[in-house]
Amino acid sequence: MAKDMEGEGHVGLAHKDYQDPPPAPFFDPAELRKWSFYRALIAEFVATLLFLYITILTVIGYNHQTDSTADLCNGVGILGIAWAFGGMIFVLVYCTAGISGGHINPAVTFGLFLARKVSLVRAVAYMVAQCLGAISGVGLVKGFQSSYYNRYKGGANTLSHGYSKGTGLGAEIIGTFLLVYTVFSATDPKRKARDSHVPVLAPLPIGFAVFMVHLATIPITGTGINPARSLGPAVIYNNQKAWDDQWIFWVGPFIGAAIAAIYHQYVLRAHAVKALGSFRSSTNL
Amino acid sequence: MAKDMEGEGHVGLAHKDYQDPPPAPFFDPAELRKWSFYRALIAEFVATLLFLYITILTVIGYNHQTDSTADLCNGVGILGIAWAFGGMIFVLVYCTAGISGGHINPAVTFGLFLARKVSLVRAVAYMVAQCLGAISGVGLVKGFQSSYYNRYKGGANTLSHGYSKGTGLGAEIIGTFLLVYTVFSATDPKRKARDSHVPVLAPLPIGFAVFMVHLATIPITGTGINPARSLGPAVIYNNQKAWDDQWIFWVGPFIGAAIAAIYHQYVLRAHAVKALGSFRSSTNL
Amino acid sequence: MAKDMEGEGHVGLAHKDYQDPPPAPFFDPAELRKWSFYRALIAEFVATLLFLYITILTVIGYNHQTDSTADLCNGVGILGIAWAFGGMIFVLVYCTAGISGGHINPAVTFGLFLARKVSLVRAVAYMVAQCLGAISGVGLVKGFQSSYYNRYKGGANTLSHGYSKGTGLGAEIIGTFLLVYTVFSATDPKRKARDSHVPVLAPLPIGFAVFMVHLATIPITGTGINPARSLGPAVIYNNQKAWDDQWIFWVGPFIGAAIAAIYHQYVLRAHAVKALGSFRSSTNL
Amino acid sequence: MAKDMEGEGHVGLAHKDYQDPPPAPFFDPAELRKWSFYRALIAEFVATLLFLYITILTVIGYNHQTDSTADLCNGVGILGIAWAFGGMIFVLVYCTAGISGGHINPAVTFGLFLARKVSLVRAVAYMVAQCLGAISGVGLVKGFQSSYYNRYKGGANTLSHGYSKGTGLGAEIIGTFLLVYTVFSATDPKRKARDSHVPVLAPLPIGFAVFMVHLATIPITGTGINPARSLGPAVIYNNQKAWDDQWIFWVGPFIGAAIAAIYHQYVLRAHAVKALGSFRSSTNL
Repeated sequence: MAKDMEGEGHVGLAHKDYQDPPPAPFFDPAELRKWSFYRALIAEFVATLLFLYITILTVIGYNHQTDSTADLCNGVGILGIAWAFGGMIFVLVYCTAGISGGHINPAVTFGLFLARKVSLVRAVAYMVAQCLGAISGVGLVKGFQSSYYNRYKGGANTLSHGYSKGTGLGAEIIGTFLLVYTVFSATDPKRKARDSHVPVLAPLPIGFAVFMVHLATIPITGTGINPARSLGPAVIYNNQKAWDDQWIFWVGPFIGAAIAAIYHQYVLRAHAVKALGSFRSSTNL
Repeated sequence: MAKDMEGEGHVGLAHKDYQDPPPAPFFDPAELRKWSFYRALIAEFVATLLFLYITILTVIGYNHQTDSTADLCNGVGILGIAWAFGGMIFVLVYCTAGISGGHINPAVTFGLFLARKVSLVRAVAYMVAQCLGAISGVGLVKGFQSSYYNRYKGGANTLSHGYSKGTGLGAEIIGTFLLVYTVFSATDPKRKARDSHVPVLAPLPIGFAVFMVHLATIPITGTGINPARSLGPAVIYNNQKAWDDQWIFWVGPFIGAAIAAIYHQYVLRAHAVKALGSFRSSTNL
Repeated sequence: MAKDMEGEGHVGLAHKDYQDPPPAPFFDPAELRKWSFYRALIAEFVATLLFLYITILTVIGYNHQTDSTADLCNGVGILGIAWAFGGMIFVLVYCTAGISGGHINPAVTFGLFLARKVSLVRAVAYMVAQCLGAISGVGLVKGFQSSYYNRYKGGANTLSHGYSKGTGLGAEIIGTFLLVYTVFSATDPKRKARDSHVPVLAPLPIGFAVFMVHLATIPITGTGINPARSLGPAVIYNNQKAWDDQWIFWVGPFIGAAIAAIYHQYVLRAHAVKALGSFRSSTNL
Repeated sequence: MAKDMEGEGHVGLAHKDYQDPPPAPFFDPAELRKWSFYRALIAEFVATLLFLYITILTVIGYNHQTDSTADLCNGVGILGIAWAFGGMIFVLVYCTAGISGGHINPAVTFGLFLARKVSLVRAVAYMVAQCLGAISGVGLVKGFQSSYYNRYKGGANTLSHGYSKGTGLGAEIIGTFLLVYTVFSATDPKRKARDSHVPVLAPLPIGFAVFMVHLATIPITGTGINPARSLGPAVIYNNQKAWDDQWIFWVGPFIGAAIAAIYHQYVLRAHAVKALGSFRSSTNL
């Protein structure tokens, strides 16, 4: 705390010690001709598959354990489930950051697209790869846990009994805001300059943000804050209730990500004027 | 351990390899004309709002779970609550360190003011922003959990049955001392020089200090060590007992922060003489 | 997230800022004449001994606690067991990385051998040291817990009731894939260049990967993903069921490690052509 | 894993890129005339006081919670206790590393003395400060928890029912070996050179090592691996059984620390000959 504040009132920097990358174009045809683009899609697919495989397997195993009264306290508990989601995001963002940027979440991709960090083409392609990965990961869990998968509600996100749709939507919006705000803070070029180019720790607070949101909102919605995570079990479990509530887990995260993008770019970084200009000139880059 | 000790008895440094920033003035009118000042207030407000939202939601959810005997051991437990408080401080200090210094706690602001790291104006403005953020965050929880919020005591800090006021005050003093001592250790310019400018990890031990204090003192007071965290639920829950004990959660943390500031500045950094001088000359800076 | 992506489509690097080490030869006689080779074997032996000692002691202690109904919920739980495995890998990889490379797992050694990071001689010698260390570590646990060790199934990996051999094998393959994929990501020379030579954090995501896999697959197989970890209890407990299932915990991890090596080297790093060439020319190095 | 291995067999370094500090003298009169020496003693006293205060308070609170059958699963559990010990060591080593070297444990001080990292005078003074701090910290807990402190066995380390003295001693030896081995690995000058002077992470694996040992051996001895931690409750609780077993928690940790010092200095660093020479010439330094 107070790390960078001391000089705040004293130093008038004549030049910035960091450089914002130019905004990504909406459509960049050169991108589609590079192997690195397809490699990034494969990495997003594999990472989202592993994410859903480990987390939904933990959720199903937990329900199985609490079902048998003999082993009342033997399960990993909600705390263990929250760790599974947060810890996997930490590991997978660490592994894929250098290949695809480590989104593993359509809401994160949407937030970074709004901030002009990725092109429209890349954003759409990532989201498709993430959703296919999520469906495949949950499919594996169903294959492995055939007897328990359906009995324990398939790990699907649904609104818990006693909460209104508005509450569920609000919980998704604020939870995703916290996650995407952490992503923006962790990948800010200003931070990299300040921390002498040690971005290596960025995945840890991002994973913790996911862990925290799960601790708080599992009782309300099971916690989505990641549309791919919510879509995968809905497709594989294919239950009416899961499909009825599905829109909450797309609209909420996208609104939360948008607010985080606006908060970071326009309030914290004060890019309002520059950003407006960049939207006009971006096609010339 | 023993990292920096080896040379202690052998090396007579002719010049220091780090520089203490000049003490912050009590009142700096230039500060009020900068956007960065107001941006810092917004960041403190949003961070404290998110902090109370996630943590109080976790506390209410936990009480709800333990209430229903069918799910006796399914809640996140006191361990999960302690993680929620510590983990959120880690994430939020990480996110706001570069904008506002990442206080998110009036006791931390008070300690840094005593050590002349922030001006009086900034300290007061931060505390107001933090308290407003805390009230808003708890208000959101009440909105989301209307049926459960009042039934489960609103997440307010009160003295548990069987403990005296002196014990509660002592627990708050020592807990806040540990937190603010960690903050000073993490943001010491001497440490930055030693660790070759890698302050990026500072939020992790700060978050862990909060986690530790919660593990130890939740049974006594529910753990405050942050007057904004204690004020928020008191305002929203508005219960007589919560207001009666409220002074403990302001006096205790402020005393603990003051002792930590004195310990760090006068014992560990041996600034006694220099600091005295700086108090006299600070108006000229 | 998005850390390294920005430049992806814009910058044409004329020269790489990192250097792949030359592939390790299959057999390097000079290696056997160096003290550092035998020191590495000792470090792998001691680390695997400590790994099995701490983790199996935790497993046995957990079973003992849950057995006595009076202390129904006092054990560390499956969450505590998962932490023991993941946390020990974090600590031991941190301690031995500079001496032996910190494998502590025949599947990791096998994956790094396939990627030509270690010679065949070193790979075989490491695996022998790891297996001897694992057997010794479990032997210590049996000596310390004589009365409880056999009663609580000796910490051996076996297929749980209700799961097919195919499911167990699949769980081991995917779990080891996640672990070895993280190892490759953490030790990639490209990452080191990007992160300005701060490999110090590599052990943390590796330990978390192990933690995550245990959360998910303890209910299925007890989680192996490390043939030495599975062999140790099988030898000391010497139970028919543990020996019958033993092949799953060798075949699964080796297949998973091979897929991770192929995924990292041929998909993510696109070494297909270069690697083919290096296999031919490696004897000349 | 495999981080530093690649070059092992290929590179013949003409000069080392790191420098071992000269061995500390047995008695250095200049040390006693420096403020930094007394400041280090104060820091060790305060840190050990905080360590025992938080951890023993957690232990007592846990016993209180499990005692009331109504709140069967509400305590922090053995997992929470293990986190309290490991997490506090992480925070306190982080805070005091630059002042005193961050020992907070007579066994660590003993190990570093054997490796000639601290003088005999400093080692003895540290141990006295640590023991006084531990007694004060437990005294605070007794003052705060007067009604519960004695009822819940005062947080003292004793051999659990059903374990022999030899098992308790063995568990203490191996546990302390793991801790001191991690300390040596984390503070090795060779590591600092390799990791480009980023010792900042050293406290994290040290804290995790303490966490791990507690998970495994709380059922056996309550886990000492720190003679000051075991002495404090023995003095304040003053129970016959605690005093009878006390020797285990001094002899075990000192033997474990000695083995770790020998393993690191003579096996891993191959200092046998150099160290012998340094013992003879150290008085001339």
